[in-house]
Amino acid sequence: MYPTATDTRGLAGQTVGDTQICSVNQTQLIYRGYEIADLAANATFEEVAFLLLVGHKPSADELATFSGDLVSMREIPASVADAIVRIAGESPSAHPMSVLRTAISLLGHLDSECEDNGPDAELRKSMRLLAQIPTCIGIHQRALEGKPAISPDPALGHAANLLWCMTGEKPGNIAARVMDVSLILYAEHDFNASTFTCRTIASTNSDLHSAICGGVGALKGNLHGGANEAAMAMLEDIMRDTEGGDITVEAWMQRAFEEKRKLMGFGHRVPRNFDRRAGILREWGLKYAAEENRESSRWFELGDEVQGIMLREKNIFPNVSLSCGMTYFAMGIPVPQYTPIFVASRITGWCAHVMEQHANNRIIRPLASYTGPELTTWNG
Amino acid sequence: MYPTATDTRGLAGQTVGDTQICSVNQTQLIYRGYEIADLAANATFEEVAFLLLVGHKPSADELATFSGDLVSMREIPASVADAIVRIAGESPSAHPMSVLRTAISLLGHLDSECEDNGPDAELRKSMRLLAQIPTCIGIHQRALEGKPAISPDPALGHAANLLWCMTGEKPGNIAARVMDVSLILYAEHDFNASTFTCRTIASTNSDLHSAICGGVGALKGNLHGGANEAAMAMLEDIMRDTEGGDITVEAWMQRAFEEKRKLMGFGHRVPRNFDRRAGILREWGLKYAAEENRESSRWFELGDEVQGIMLREKNIFPNVSLSCGMTYFAMGIPVPQYTPIFVASRITGWCAHVMEQHANNRIIRPLASYTGPELTTWNG
Repeated sequence: MYPTATDTRGLAGQTVGDTQICSVNQTQLIYRGYEIADLAANATFEEVAFLLLVGHKPSADELATFSGDLVSMREIPASVADAIVRIAGESPSAHPMSVLRTAISLLGHLDSECEDNGPDAELRKSMRLLAQIPTCIGIHQRALEGKPAISPDPALGHAANLLWCMTGEKPGNIAARVMDVSLILYAEHDFNASTFTCRTIASTNSDLHSAICGGVGALKGNLHGGANEAAMAMLEDIMRDTEGGDITVEAWMQRAFEEKRKLMGFGHRVPRNFDRRAGILREWGLKYAAEENRESSRWFELGDEVQGIMLREKNIFPNVSLSCGMTYFAMGIPVPQYTPIFVASRITGWCAHVMEQHANNRIIRPLASYTGPELTTWNG
Repeated sequence: MYPTATDTRGLAGQTVGDTQICSVNQTQLIYRGYEIADLAANATFEEVAFLLLVGHKPSADELATFSGDLVSMREIPASVADAIVRIAGESPSAHPMSVLRTAISLLGHLDSECEDNGPDAELRKSMRLLAQIPTCIGIHQRALEGKPAISPDPALGHAANLLWCMTGEKPGNIAARVMDVSLILYAEHDFNASTFTCRTIASTNSDLHSAICGGVGALKGNLHGGANEAAMAMLEDIMRDTEGGDITVEAWMQRAFEEKRKLMGFGHRVPRNFDRRAGILREWGLKYAAEENRESSRWFELGDEVQGIMLREKNIFPNVSLSCGMTYFAMGIPVPQYTPIFVASRITGWCAHVMEQHANNRIIRPLASYTGPELTTWNG
């Protein structure tokens, strides 16, 4: 399923540039010098966002200012809120990622610094998008449910406010922390497809909002961010098919292998054999299930059984998408919002990369090998 | 200004994949086996669009059906038209490329085949976008001028209809053909930054509209499609500064060299020293100026003088952006619409590449070299 080092299609295994933001290898995921398990255990998402966007661990004062600024930036212009509600009414089946792509594009028109690619303006634009994306997600989800939008709550941090805007319920401490940890885990992953998209767009001297719209589009695919939705859809399939007792999980998996069905939530190009994030989020998901939603534990049991079979039969480890899918499911988050929530986190990594690209730019313009028809003449 | 072959930042000189769509080298630009000068002399833009999207030169019947289908697809949903007018009112300074990015994102929500990445659906979506983009451009430009939108004219081809929707005037034969040729020249250029963006987005299994929104964002930058606007802005600067006789063009250029000012419309990474398209479009621009707008000839004279100095002093040739800027200027097209017009053409190449990517997909996910801080711990 995953390529060998000598198979370079899709730029697999090809190092295409430098970054000071993130390091991913077979054993570690590091954000600007801090290992992901350390951050998940000891930092908040706001601290990680500051680290990624500004470049160092914030002091207490820096963090207070940064967090306060984010809270003050959460409201979105009325015309963008209206547009999201209108789209939910006119195109209720539009994927939330497509709607978020539109919302961010609209926010660009109204951002007075839209065309300023300088570092100060780009940091401010990054913070505005970081603050506004949960608002956009919340308005869309509520509109789909026929409910009025909820104002962001200044008393809540980024993760808790995101849950509040989506559900209209103040999350408990565990729910808020589980979401916070998931946002930390998802914030950055070096030159993944969406980040590389952002950098390629920025490399033409285009603006940050243009880059982020591209990143949202890339993250949407089920080989990337969309995998957490796809992984959960797969688990729902297995649960439904096996619940009646007509088929065992083992038999379901063997049939999927025989049919060469693509199973989501397993393997990763980088790292190949071990996704540090999967275990961290599984622990938090289990904690949430045990303390807040015992009934949801059966999803983790199913996930563990499926993981075990994949490892035994295919030697492929689960990735973070599977843990994330189960955890968000246990928390009652609508499946189509999983990838938009990923955006609410990865916006930090994307924006950090856009700033890094603009600080030392060279257009990303590779070559192709032509394998088409030989030269001929039009009238001939 | 342009990299050596051994300097691989920005993937310069790196072949990253195969394509049957286009070949660019130091002497030729080939679309699926046909050389660009042959196409510019003997084909229409609709024929080239068919060639790129379907894969072969159309028969007379195929062309009639394709062209008729495009005409029938030009109208856009009322809600998208309304949104464009609203944006023009609320954000009159928003760049037309940003507005086009939003418009295409909105069209995605309303496309019933949005999430279908199969080849038949993607060809139909490509044709719809090809047909609808001139409508979007026209509505936006007219709204900026405070004028009502104009309905597309079924009697006009793609190029003439584009001019009609923007200006409200039926173009003469020469204007229509000049626009047609410029669209042929701009349609495709292998793995340029915007096309590579489209392919990267598509490579996650994301949808065509998401890919195209990314492509529009990438093309916007002044190191890419935005160069035609930037080149014309530079010529306007030179014309204004030199008209009074206080400074000669020669002195203006020498000063720009001394100030290391980036001069737009010159050089290209691929091809390095000769942009086949520049000469073709210059000829058509001169023909238009001679027959339709004699006053505009002074821009071509200025352009020729500037080109000559660049070649003598820096050994850098003009690229197509300079010819395009002067030609569109002579035709009275508003400068901020130059890059959206580029989209009205390049949409064909982008969509062809999205289909090619999806037909034989592998996620585009390179690696980065980490140059950030050494590993440390969060608390201490």
